Amino acid sequence: MSKKDHSDWLSRRRKHLAGQDPDLLFQRIRQGDRVALAEGITLIESEHPDHKLKADRLIELCLPHSGHSIRLGITGVPGVGKSTFIESFGSQLIADGGKLAVLAIDPTSGISGGSILGDKTRMEVLSNHPDVFIRPSAAGDSLGGVARKTRESVFLCEAAGFDHIIIETVGVGQSETVVKSMVDFFLLLMLAGAGDELQGIKKGIMEMADAVIITKADGENVLKAKQAEVQYKNALHLFQPNPNGWIPETGICSSVENTGIEEIVEMIKRFGRNMTLNGWLQKNRESQSGKWLIESLNERILDAFYTDSTCVTALNEMKMKVISNEISPYRAAEELYRIFQLKE
Amino acid sequence: MSKKDHSDWLSRRRKHLAGQDPDLLFQRIRQGDRVALAEGITLIESEHPDHKLKADRLIELCLPHSGHSIRLGITGVPGVGKSTFIESFGSQLIADGGKLAVLAIDPTSGISGGSILGDKTRMEVLSNHPDVFIRPSAAGDSLGGVARKTRESVFLCEAAGFDHIIIETVGVGQSETVVKSMVDFFLLLMLAGAGDELQGIKKGIMEMADAVIITKADGENVLKAKQAEVQYKNALHLFQPNPNGWIPETGICSSVENTGIEEIVEMIKRFGRNMTLNGWLQKNRESQSGKWLIESLNERILDAFYTDSTCVTALNEMKMKVISNEISPYRAAEELYRIFQLKE
Repeated sequence: MSKKDHSDWLSRRRKHLAGQDPDLLFQRIRQGDRVALAEGITLIESEHPDHKLKADRLIELCLPHSGHSIRLGITGVPGVGKSTFIESFGSQLIADGGKLAVLAIDPTSGISGGSILGDKTRMEVLSNHPDVFIRPSAAGDSLGGVARKTRESVFLCEAAGFDHIIIETVGVGQSETVVKSMVDFFLLLMLAGAGDELQGIKKGIMEMADAVIITKADGENVLKAKQAEVQYKNALHLFQPNPNGWIPETGICSSVENTGIEEIVEMIKRFGRNMTLNGWLQKNRESQSGKWLIESLNERILDAFYTDSTCVTALNEMKMKVISNEISPYRAAEELYRIFQLKE
Repeated sequence: MSKKDHSDWLSRRRKHLAGQDPDLLFQRIRQGDRVALAEGITLIESEHPDHKLKADRLIELCLPHSGHSIRLGITGVPGVGKSTFIESFGSQLIADGGKLAVLAIDPTSGISGGSILGDKTRMEVLSNHPDVFIRPSAAGDSLGGVARKTRESVFLCEAAGFDHIIIETVGVGQSETVVKSMVDFFLLLMLAGAGDELQGIKKGIMEMADAVIITKADGENVLKAKQAEVQYKNALHLFQPNPNGWIPETGICSSVENTGIEEIVEMIKRFGRNMTLNGWLQKNRESQSGKWLIESLNERILDAFYTDSTCVTALNEMKMKVISNEISPYRAAEELYRIFQLKE
């Protein structure tokens, strides 16, 4: 799309969104209208102030109907085969009924949707399935912004009756932590391989995983995959048990030969049953909501300092003094706070 | 000490501190006067506003003379033998000269000094060594407060000519992250033992370690310790390499039989040489100072909200609404921010 075409498309889109009535949209979403769901998410993703008001109203309407799903985070380094995995795993997940929504978080994605899920043809079966809704990552400059849009999209999907939500992310940067904070179960996909390849894992990711699955365990790879599984099992063993009593599991699978997938579906269903029974699912979501509230609030308050040019200039000057040992960091913070107070 | 005795002691202490002249104290500290160093740290630890001003002046004087040491964090679960390890390791570390200061961070410690390093007799050799300074953990309600006092104490110790600083912490809670953020090298002590015992490790701690050392590798334990070492070596292998190029090392040692200690001393010295040569030591400390500045500043700014009773009441009400799905966390944050703005 050329720049001109894009801006034309954007202005048509804005006009269309401006005409949306959130109450009507909500009714259509509740009836399972997937076009309405897609339009609702577009409203949430819009940066336009008018759309924000409508989006807030829509979310407010959807919220009481949200929560009735298993939220599943899936991550893995590029090349691990996330799309093919989601394709086979997702099909199996709703083989006995149910509806699946696949969302993505990719802060590196550009205006047009980005590098993951941007190309729906990578999930040919799922994208043509009547009970599956696939949505590429929201565009946005900040991970926080993209995260907010995704979290709010989950509410809409749930109000639309989707009972399985997959949130996919790419295994780089801070996006895993963000995904972990909005899902019930966190699945880490890994490639088998000797030493070096295994090191691709980002610090801290493995400890967040509720399951580590070795993909591409087919043909000659099966033995290597099994060896890798043992290594991960041992490594997971070193971490403290989860507060919900879930012991992280490992597995191997092949999306091509369709092996190992059923076991993962079983595991997720077992997790969902156990965590509903012991009350953790509900408790964890309440705690997640509480954390989002505090995080958003803190961000809002701190913005008052960091968007003020006088404050930021003073901060940069003070930082140089701290680095050259002229002033202690704590003392510097106090002086900056004084500048901030005077400004107000 | 009875409550009455304690309050008497406190008031004598305050009177004594009030008489301190920070400029004089600084001169004595620079001359290597350990009593002055201890008094300077007491000044830093005091919560009295008058003392804070004096403490700020003292830190300001010491800062330009700080930085010339290797800062070493040591952690491990209770029972791992931290004190005995520090006793033999510390003695060896300064066997060829140099001065060692041992500080502690223990947010669970009470008024009288707390559970770690409180009893100096546990390090009999070190506490009687003329070139060693041992200081129990500062008391304080918050980890942040204790951390600040310890960080500032490091500046004083360095100005007093101490070229090795050990910061000890107990392997529980968030204190490791705090210690990691103020040291050059982070040493994790672990016990050998089968499966279950190994699980005592807190999530994320292992990934911060520059070395994992299995203690109590003596007598019958040697074989078990060697097995555990292999397990940790494999696990460390799964993490991404450090930005400084340091590959985390493992080792076994016995503080009783004094085996393996020399290797650890050698490792620390090698680390110090390499990281000074490649410039990482300096770069890392600048980055740590920058982070303390931002952290302290953010804390200061957010305090304006969280110490205001109107704001806190509104937050609690809003939190209930968020948990019961009446309002989205983001929307709630915006409304709270509006209340905060009106207040100002």
